[in-house]
Amino acid sequence: MTLPASRAECEAWDARDPLAPVRARFQLKSGLIYMDGNSLGALTHDSAARARAMIEDEWGNDLIRSWNVHGWFDLPHRLGAKIAPLIGATADEVLVADSTSVNLFKLASAAMMNRGARHRIVTESGNFPSDIYVLQGLAALSGAAIEIIAVPRTEVIDCIDESTFLVVLTHVHYKTAELFDLPAITRRAHASGARILWDLSHSVGALELDLHASRADFAIGCTYKYLNGGPGAPAFLYVRRDLQDQVQPGLAAWMGHAAPFDFTDDYDPAPGMARHRSGTPSMIAFAALEGALGVWDDIDLRDVRRKSVELSELFIGCVEALGSPEILLASPRAAARRGSHIAFSHPRGYELMQALIARGVIGDFRAPDIIRFALTPLYLRYVDVWDAVTILGEVLLSHDRTELLRRNAVT
Amino acid sequence: MTLPASRAECEAWDARDPLAPVRARFQLKSGLIYMDGNSLGALTHDSAARARAMIEDEWGNDLIRSWNVHGWFDLPHRLGAKIAPLIGATADEVLVADSTSVNLFKLASAAMMNRGARHRIVTESGNFPSDIYVLQGLAALSGAAIEIIAVPRTEVIDCIDESTFLVVLTHVHYKTAELFDLPAITRRAHASGARILWDLSHSVGALELDLHASRADFAIGCTYKYLNGGPGAPAFLYVRRDLQDQVQPGLAAWMGHAAPFDFTDDYDPAPGMARHRSGTPSMIAFAALEGALGVWDDIDLRDVRRKSVELSELFIGCVEALGSPEILLASPRAAARRGSHIAFSHPRGYELMQALIARGVIGDFRAPDIIRFALTPLYLRYVDVWDAVTILGEVLLSHDRTELLRRNAVT
Repeated sequence: MTLPASRAECEAWDARDPLAPVRARFQLKSGLIYMDGNSLGALTHDSAARARAMIEDEWGNDLIRSWNVHGWFDLPHRLGAKIAPLIGATADEVLVADSTSVNLFKLASAAMMNRGARHRIVTESGNFPSDIYVLQGLAALSGAAIEIIAVPRTEVIDCIDESTFLVVLTHVHYKTAELFDLPAITRRAHASGARILWDLSHSVGALELDLHASRADFAIGCTYKYLNGGPGAPAFLYVRRDLQDQVQPGLAAWMGHAAPFDFTDDYDPAPGMARHRSGTPSMIAFAALEGALGVWDDIDLRDVRRKSVELSELFIGCVEALGSPEILLASPRAAARRGSHIAFSHPRGYELMQALIARGVIGDFRAPDIIRFALTPLYLRYVDVWDAVTILGEVLLSHDRTELLRRNAVT
Repeated sequence: MTLPASRAECEAWDARDPLAPVRARFQLKSGLIYMDGNSLGALTHDSAARARAMIEDEWGNDLIRSWNVHGWFDLPHRLGAKIAPLIGATADEVLVADSTSVNLFKLASAAMMNRGARHRIVTESGNFPSDIYVLQGLAALSGAAIEIIAVPRTEVIDCIDESTFLVVLTHVHYKTAELFDLPAITRRAHASGARILWDLSHSVGALELDLHASRADFAIGCTYKYLNGGPGAPAFLYVRRDLQDQVQPGLAAWMGHAAPFDFTDDYDPAPGMARHRSGTPSMIAFAALEGALGVWDDIDLRDVRRKSVELSELFIGCVEALGSPEILLASPRAAARRGSHIAFSHPRGYELMQALIARGVIGDFRAPDIIRFALTPLYLRYVDVWDAVTILGEVLLSHDRTELLRRNAVT
């Protein structure tokens, strides 16, 4: 792949980018290069408008009747159906509800109750830890001798055995963006008779995904990163169609009942995904997400992935060209093994990121020495990447000079 | 209590009502008498404005930095501190998080893990069923021989025994508004060595509550009824200060960790209420609630309860004066035994409520024959109650006439 070699060439690439018009759907402050979309996606105009209509018209004017007249009750399913094509699922396999952690709890508890004689959950150590905390809480609660095997990612495959009932993995690593081979590991889990649950928080909206083709059992994911649903936006969960009626969440509440308005004392799980609804969800949070998901209607994920790779390669190439000795790529070098953000290590990563933010380049820092940058194809331009690395170069130069002076002063 | 005896007298009562000015803080469509605030409270202007600022300024402009610069991270505690005085708790005893059902799960699972040799949960049958579904799910998950004793409310006290580790009760009944004697039953639970958890969903913002005085262990509640936090607004949970460090939720996630940004693999619960934070919550939903809670700053709950009782007595008195034979009070007649809504039974309750709604009086129907009306002192006027019952009288008269004609035609 030959990438742009000058700012002017970046402009030319932007001019012929099929995703370029999508940028206008976002509210983006001028002068800011926002590269933290892997943590919180930017606001779309549609999201703001939809939330406002929900609050002022639906809640404000139509009040309680909105549950029927504005279809609030079915919104968790309608939003699930909008996410389905982004992960290679059918509309009746995805539900929007609660947070990613709560959804993991529901599905892992369901798998636990179906575990038979197996007692192990296999997962990755050093992953974003909410998932492992959820599993630890669940194991403590069960009272049974559930064993959680948390190992470095390279050892995961070898730990899946006949005692494993569930494998829980995050597809794209939150820090390094390294990808697991989703189809291969799913096959490996199935070969041992284990179920697999994929956390797609850093994948959805950034990569092409095909849960159906891989026959993945369960998935969860968040909507506030590449889907731009808003801070703490409601999460989604997926259960493969043929498993849905075998799987009952340990966290069950009224909206997941087969007949929620009968108000009977005995829990009878609703068919399909509806049983994973729990309490009453925030319609305002749902509305913001609904607005954001509308943007995806006309978008081809192949364009998104292609541009994500190009932006990432441009970013890495430009950083390498800076020739600064202390900034090291902490993500895989091969694009095929990376998600849509890039991590570098730098001994003074924290100060570096603070300096970048002060200059209008927003990424983030993860202890002890990692700086992360998201390449979000819907609203980031080639020229933004060029400018971001130019600023990074200036910041590094100033840093290197200060370091040199400091060292000379010391010696 | 001598209540207004004419519409003009109602107007006079409104003129001297200390809560009258609060009505202007709500967006209320003219011509509508909204009596479903026990299900979904009305929109305040502050709620709409705060949500808009959250979306357009904080998320839209400041993006990820808002977690720090706008204090998003601590918002669950700040909102908890605002709810605390409404339930007789201290600021560090209340947290806003998730839904009422999920919060019940957290606290009931914590109690279950501390149950020692006890194995029973005592609760009420025929209550709003989400609470019992949560307990049933938890029992199934535990794998242990947890017994859920669900009995009619009059039998609850006698079922609390030395094998009971937890009593779960809803303070105000969702259908009839009948009150449990919170201090007395709390004492009874403690006398047997059991913990007690109160669901305050239909109480908070409608009644004076003093959890501290009663030494209640746990409480949960929703914020979309009398607190007007918006459809599906985030819920709250309370743990008495001296119990907080003994209680660990079975549903644990990253925001409840002692050092959430260390991203370590082992769950270490945060001190105090913070351990009950789970995944990342919707800041937009929180903002709408924050706006709504601001209204309570200047309000004395004694005024709220006094007016609630007056509006309820006026409503019941006027309905009794209609002399319609088929509409029967399904709530306790004594105000001291009632919350802030009133239920009546009527053989054709569903049709009756539809006719009322068509005439602009919004209450709701609960199968098989209950119609419910909420008396919300912050935005309902004495004159609204007068007008609502006048319309109810017209609807009943028309109904009774139709019934008479129908019967005559049949015979």
